[in-house]
Amino acid sequence: MSIENLMAAMAGDARTASRSLRRLGSAPKDAALELMAKRLMERMDNIARENEKDLEKAAGSGLSGAMIDRLTLDAATIRQMAEGLKEVAALPDPVGAVTGMWKRPNGLQVGRVRIPLGVIGFIYESRPNVTVDAAALCLKSGNAVILKGGSEAIHSNMILGDILSESLRDSGIPEKAVQVVPVTDREVVNVLISLEDHIDIIIPRGGEGLIRFVTAHSRVPVLKHYKGVCHVYVDRFADLDMAEEICFNAKVQRPGVCNAMETLLVHEAVSREFLPRMLERFRKAGVEIRGCPMTMERVPGTAPASDEDWPAEFLDLILAVKVVSSLDDALDHIETYSSSHTEAIVTSDYARSRRFLEEVDSSVVLVNASTRFNDGNQLGLGAEIGINTSKLHAFGPMGLEELTTTKFIVLGQGQVRT
Amino acid sequence: MSIENLMAAMAGDARTASRSLRRLGSAPKDAALELMAKRLMERMDNIARENEKDLEKAAGSGLSGAMIDRLTLDAATIRQMAEGLKEVAALPDPVGAVTGMWKRPNGLQVGRVRIPLGVIGFIYESRPNVTVDAAALCLKSGNAVILKGGSEAIHSNMILGDILSESLRDSGIPEKAVQVVPVTDREVVNVLISLEDHIDIIIPRGGEGLIRFVTAHSRVPVLKHYKGVCHVYVDRFADLDMAEEICFNAKVQRPGVCNAMETLLVHEAVSREFLPRMLERFRKAGVEIRGCPMTMERVPGTAPASDEDWPAEFLDLILAVKVVSSLDDALDHIETYSSSHTEAIVTSDYARSRRFLEEVDSSVVLVNASTRFNDGNQLGLGAEIGINTSKLHAFGPMGLEELTTTKFIVLGQGQVRT
Repeated sequence: MSIENLMAAMAGDARTASRSLRRLGSAPKDAALELMAKRLMERMDNIARENEKDLEKAAGSGLSGAMIDRLTLDAATIRQMAEGLKEVAALPDPVGAVTGMWKRPNGLQVGRVRIPLGVIGFIYESRPNVTVDAAALCLKSGNAVILKGGSEAIHSNMILGDILSESLRDSGIPEKAVQVVPVTDREVVNVLISLEDHIDIIIPRGGEGLIRFVTAHSRVPVLKHYKGVCHVYVDRFADLDMAEEICFNAKVQRPGVCNAMETLLVHEAVSREFLPRMLERFRKAGVEIRGCPMTMERVPGTAPASDEDWPAEFLDLILAVKVVSSLDDALDHIETYSSSHTEAIVTSDYARSRRFLEEVDSSVVLVNASTRFNDGNQLGLGAEIGINTSKLHAFGPMGLEELTTTKFIVLGQGQVRT
Repeated sequence: MSIENLMAAMAGDARTASRSLRRLGSAPKDAALELMAKRLMERMDNIARENEKDLEKAAGSGLSGAMIDRLTLDAATIRQMAEGLKEVAALPDPVGAVTGMWKRPNGLQVGRVRIPLGVIGFIYESRPNVTVDAAALCLKSGNAVILKGGSEAIHSNMILGDILSESLRDSGIPEKAVQVVPVTDREVVNVLISLEDHIDIIIPRGGEGLIRFVTAHSRVPVLKHYKGVCHVYVDRFADLDMAEEICFNAKVQRPGVCNAMETLLVHEAVSREFLPRMLERFRKAGVEIRGCPMTMERVPGTAPASDEDWPAEFLDLILAVKVVSSLDDALDHIETYSSSHTEAIVTSDYARSRRFLEEVDSSVVLVNASTRFNDGNQLGLGAEIGINTSKLHAFGPMGLEELTTTKFIVLGQGQVRT
């Protein structure tokens, strides 16, 4: 079968499945999630065997240790996936909630009801556990999903997909509600993003190149973020001990993720006191510092930042540092270089905290807290399928509710328009 | 200046203006809207003179009478635009509302605040009054807007744009918050939809061809509907007098709009009683009927419907009619041919009304009311900038609130992630 025909068939099946899915109450969906968790544990050996095929190929093709690590499905990872399924089952079902209802002067009752998006195309790289996490969130929110994982994880993804589909079938839910694309051909992505009649939304997760390609060519709406260039601004009225802890956490706790700090902005008035101790602590933790001229003056021996460092997402123990002369300067810098992802201010000044909260146009804006909290779980959304930095639909982390939309229902007694 | 440079400059100016706009409270925005209304009335002659240039050109190029009618800005149309501006000024400002706030176990207070989308690219055809309506909604919701109207209305749009910008400036708001593209080159659209760094959302309004082109090629997210193939289903338990009024209103009251009925579905059990009287009334009103075989049997002399009639948006006094043997049949037909826009059921049966409301996957689903109510004003949103039939962001009519998004604000006391 050609890729075109295969994807059209999968998308058509997904559309049919989604029609059943949108009518389901929580009980059958939760039962299916619980069964998936049980089956994953039961078939651990089976999963490990298929995963081994991917690992052998990866070793042969010279993938890095970190990549192989991310690809590995051992007992602990499988247990984690099973736990994740149970957690999603325990979350409240967003579908069916009436988010508002009002009466018009002519007696029409108008309401908005939460409904699934329909069919989601999920395009991702590496990490086969994402297959299970994404499928769980889509199912719980009443959506059918087509999962296109990385070619290096194809055997792992296929066995996981089989287990998920079996569990659906045995729970009386159409097995095509979750489908793993069974081929690794790159053409799959091109076709997937053209099927606007059958797919309601594309979520790409992976490298910036993949995401830019999908955004440029998709006819289907895309939820995505390119990168996270997150800033922490240490204000002149900051509690410097607090600032030190927040900055250290934001940079070092997990440097390889999108909500880690990439640029530190420090108000001139506290730079003499703050920068030496902060940069010393960073240096001890192995963080490479790239500073503006004033930073280099405050902490002799600091390497200079280049123009490319300000818009950079290092995803590593590298930090750009700039001294600013005012809150306005900090806001201007953020306006210029921010990726609309996450920015934080550390300050004890009420008016300045208010200005920062109001004027910074990013999906998550924090006062006196680490940027690392931009995460669906941490913010209380329960779980997340990704973070969106386009303003449409859901700005920021997307949980179950963000995988739904609302339709209007109108209850009349024969009203016509005059 | 090249089109690329012109559009990039306009988009950059819009971005800068949007930074000021998002901080504005309601008072200056409302004052600007009131001033715009005043200036439109004061400069009526001026507007008519520029409009005359467009009308002359239109007459020369053989535009239809209906098109010329839509293009004309007379005293009544101008007064209407001014009234529209005042109505928008009187609507509540969506920006700044906290749509939810909660506390996390670690003490972080997390909230969602409504913010403007940023910069809107609005692409539309004909009707120069849309220039004023769209600008008003964008301004009130704190967005900058770039307006690309039809070439046949360029002089009218330019003078309106000038008046709006002047009024902004005289109200202390950046005049670039509203910009009319001053050239008619078709290349403008291509460039506009590529400027993803400066434009947050594209709203195309016009023919299906224009909208499909924009959707296929835009890097910027698009809110749109291709067409409205709206159905009314007259159930076996319908009050047939009510059904007659609703169907007549849905088809005849304004046949050229997207929320008019295009296909009538009638349950077999009432078809013998309902169809003759209904189709007779339609015929008297000049509606051309295209029926399924059973409809032709019920009402001899009815012309046959072809396969192309079921997915068709006639936008005219033409109606496809089909007899169905059950509610399920009606739901299947709608699932197959609906454009996700608007569908209505007429029934007195509680369970059937519930099934229809739940299972129909359209932006507005009505019980015992005309499809013509799918309209932001009619549903109580105050005003609308368009209707969206993609599931993302806002499904259905888009009012002021739908021109905003939410960002997360997080208030901490030094929290870091562990």
